[in-house]
Amino acid sequence: MPEDVAAREVLEDARSLAATGEWAKLVALVTSLHPADLAELVLALSEDDRRQLLSHLPTDVVGQLFEYAEDDEMRDLIRGVGVEDLPAVLEEVEDDVVADVIQQLHPDDREETLAALDRGEEVAELLQYGDESAGGLMSRGFISLNESITVAQAIDYLRVLRPPTEKAYYLYVVDSEKRLQGVVSIRDLLVSAPRTTLGEITQRDVHAVTTGTDQEEAARMLQRYNLLAVPVVDDEGRLEGIMSADDLIDVLQEEATEDMYRMVGLDDEEKVLAPVRRSIKRRMPWLLVNLMTAFLAALVVAPFEDTIAKASALAIFMPIIAGHAGNTGTQVATLVVRGLALGEVKYSDIWTILRKEAMFGFVHGIGAGLLTATLAVGLSLNPWLGAVTFVALMLNLLVAGAVGATIPLGLKKLGADPALASSIWLTTFTDMFGFACLLGLGTLFVSHLQ
Amino acid sequence: MPEDVAAREVLEDARSLAATGEWAKLVALVTSLHPADLAELVLALSEDDRRQLLSHLPTDVVGQLFEYAEDDEMRDLIRGVGVEDLPAVLEEVEDDVVADVIQQLHPDDREETLAALDRGEEVAELLQYGDESAGGLMSRGFISLNESITVAQAIDYLRVLRPPTEKAYYLYVVDSEKRLQGVVSIRDLLVSAPRTTLGEITQRDVHAVTTGTDQEEAARMLQRYNLLAVPVVDDEGRLEGIMSADDLIDVLQEEATEDMYRMVGLDDEEKVLAPVRRSIKRRMPWLLVNLMTAFLAALVVAPFEDTIAKASALAIFMPIIAGHAGNTGTQVATLVVRGLALGEVKYSDIWTILRKEAMFGFVHGIGAGLLTATLAVGLSLNPWLGAVTFVALMLNLLVAGAVGATIPLGLKKLGADPALASSIWLTTFTDMFGFACLLGLGTLFVSHLQ
Repeated sequence: MPEDVAAREVLEDARSLAATGEWAKLVALVTSLHPADLAELVLALSEDDRRQLLSHLPTDVVGQLFEYAEDDEMRDLIRGVGVEDLPAVLEEVEDDVVADVIQQLHPDDREETLAALDRGEEVAELLQYGDESAGGLMSRGFISLNESITVAQAIDYLRVLRPPTEKAYYLYVVDSEKRLQGVVSIRDLLVSAPRTTLGEITQRDVHAVTTGTDQEEAARMLQRYNLLAVPVVDDEGRLEGIMSADDLIDVLQEEATEDMYRMVGLDDEEKVLAPVRRSIKRRMPWLLVNLMTAFLAALVVAPFEDTIAKASALAIFMPIIAGHAGNTGTQVATLVVRGLALGEVKYSDIWTILRKEAMFGFVHGIGAGLLTATLAVGLSLNPWLGAVTFVALMLNLLVAGAVGATIPLGLKKLGADPALASSIWLTTFTDMFGFACLLGLGTLFVSHLQ
Repeated sequence: MPEDVAAREVLEDARSLAATGEWAKLVALVTSLHPADLAELVLALSEDDRRQLLSHLPTDVVGQLFEYAEDDEMRDLIRGVGVEDLPAVLEEVEDDVVADVIQQLHPDDREETLAALDRGEEVAELLQYGDESAGGLMSRGFISLNESITVAQAIDYLRVLRPPTEKAYYLYVVDSEKRLQGVVSIRDLLVSAPRTTLGEITQRDVHAVTTGTDQEEAARMLQRYNLLAVPVVDDEGRLEGIMSADDLIDVLQEEATEDMYRMVGLDDEEKVLAPVRRSIKRRMPWLLVNLMTAFLAALVVAPFEDTIAKASALAIFMPIIAGHAGNTGTQVATLVVRGLALGEVKYSDIWTILRKEAMFGFVHGIGAGLLTATLAVGLSLNPWLGAVTFVALMLNLLVAGAVGATIPLGLKKLGADPALASSIWLTTFTDMFGFACLLGLGTLFVSHLQ
């Protein structure tokens, strides 16, 4: 049975058990699920059923759900658990996830919830770090040992500690000041003689980041060097936490989603299956900004009404001149935004890119311009219309490439998100410039175009 | 010193050593680098310098470079090594990477290179699997043991085998037919009593995929369940390979890039810093297809030349009606493409989405339509122009949402890539439909618009 069909059947069973109030049966059904699957099911229930089910589940099971939830899903879970019952659930959850949950709380509830936690201070420390920094994402669940310890001692220590499987792949070797010296993999422990010291098998060339490092940069490092975890140190080199591959994969996915969405002016948290009210609240404001930018383009056209009335064939070519340059520039903006995200492009590449896009625009402009001029002459039998459309498209394409590259690089240089509505600014520009070129030339040569 | 500055300095040193032919010094400089950094450096050199440097490096170092290279970079490395010297290098590389390299070879060279390899048959087996399937990506470097073996025996086995660190996190437990039974983490080995059998500590609820599973689905499974590796089995459940987190992260990043690029009609391998000749070859064909679609929109305008000549104010509103619906629909298409990639949206959601987007389009259409009508009346002092622009924008927005969702879902249903030039098809449609509505209504009411 395909997995999503199975999941849907379990969801239907869960809904009917909730409808008849058979909570004991429902709890038995759902606690056999993987927490990731259970989280999906809980979030798919109605708010009422969700609250009821969460109140019947053991706190450690509820706690696990938070580890598999995104920000907006966390808020739904918090509402389901209730702020008063939240501290009991959070005691079962790792510090870094607790910090994420606290950030999703209403500001008024944050302090109270923190105060009710045994580990409130540790969590408060994590909350000091920026939301998107390594410090904000790192987990405290690392294992660190001194290099003078022997392999046999380290194994004994692990036997007593019994760390969770997914945390126990690397042991971090630190000095007496807790400064990170290197890393020992559990495999190395296993295959080394018991009396070897950790110092002898420590791999010292470690890729670490500091607590202030942007999470995206840490994720890129993990990907570049094929690591399973990245240690996080403070400014003095003391080990503060680790970021594991599963957390950093989520970062890479979120950043990719964010870039795709922001380029077209969408809120990061928007989903196509979200309730329509939420979508209206999230999409409408930017769309109306967007509409205002379209008004700007229209205002460029307005002064040329006379020209259009005399040479109405120009109107046929308005969408081609503006739209094609918009699409061409969007390609360049997309390449730059993604190149920046993948660490392949830097601000200092701007001149190389501008030079290259100028050459590209020239070659492409000749090709596209000739085709458009051919259509113009074919439709109007007037070579002047061909010449005007050729020159207007050529100019607009040359500028589109330059602007397509400059917008994201400029946003980056200003410290803003390079994707921020890039394609909206760009197409506003190519519309305005394209109309000005086409209709301006049209006005100059209007006597030949009538 | 920031990492990219350091990298640039090393590259400059490397270039000047290459210029003076000091190969021994250059080899000493670069072999201290991490293979990922060395690969970047080698690829940044000129073709001549690259060939020279590669011929001076030990084959195992050259082999490692392939493990950190993308497809197009592999082709550059192959040219640098030379097809005749390639087999010696590939002997140092894991089967799955060798299979990737073979696929980047010219078809004429593939058979010969395979025949020259000691492990040619194993690699040929991997090549049978689809390029984007789990079978095509999996590595053979897994450790499998029978469940009757004791912990002490397993540890002894690992001591003899000394598997590479990154492969040794999970041990896979198989029966006598090699069918996957479950998984034991190395941590469990370490903390269990030596005489325990693997069967007693096997975790049997394993998330596995089959060799034919799409690599993207395997990556989503890894992400969903926070795994470090996903085992790959054949149709009889026999363990055939594993896909590790580092390979699957690359898959997720590539798929995200692919979606972003394909939506705007870009080749997956295009890079903004690629040589301009390559970019012309990769971008021009689709851009010219794109231009043809713009011609279609222009041909919708052509029959209305008379209307435009009489009521030239309509031309001012052409870009608003068409462009705003294009942007709105692109948002929906982006949400659907990303939702499909993240596994959050399925084809069966189509009716839910269409209903929702119809409601959204209605609310947004009223808002955007009123604003546009206000501008129209403000510019022309003619309420008829306001009414025509309101209705045309409303209709185009309602249709844009539906088409924006239907294009990627339809492509998916047809087995094609949902992102495939989605935004180009969409804007062609919104241009044509928008112009038809605006100019059609304009023609009907032309006497009131003059």
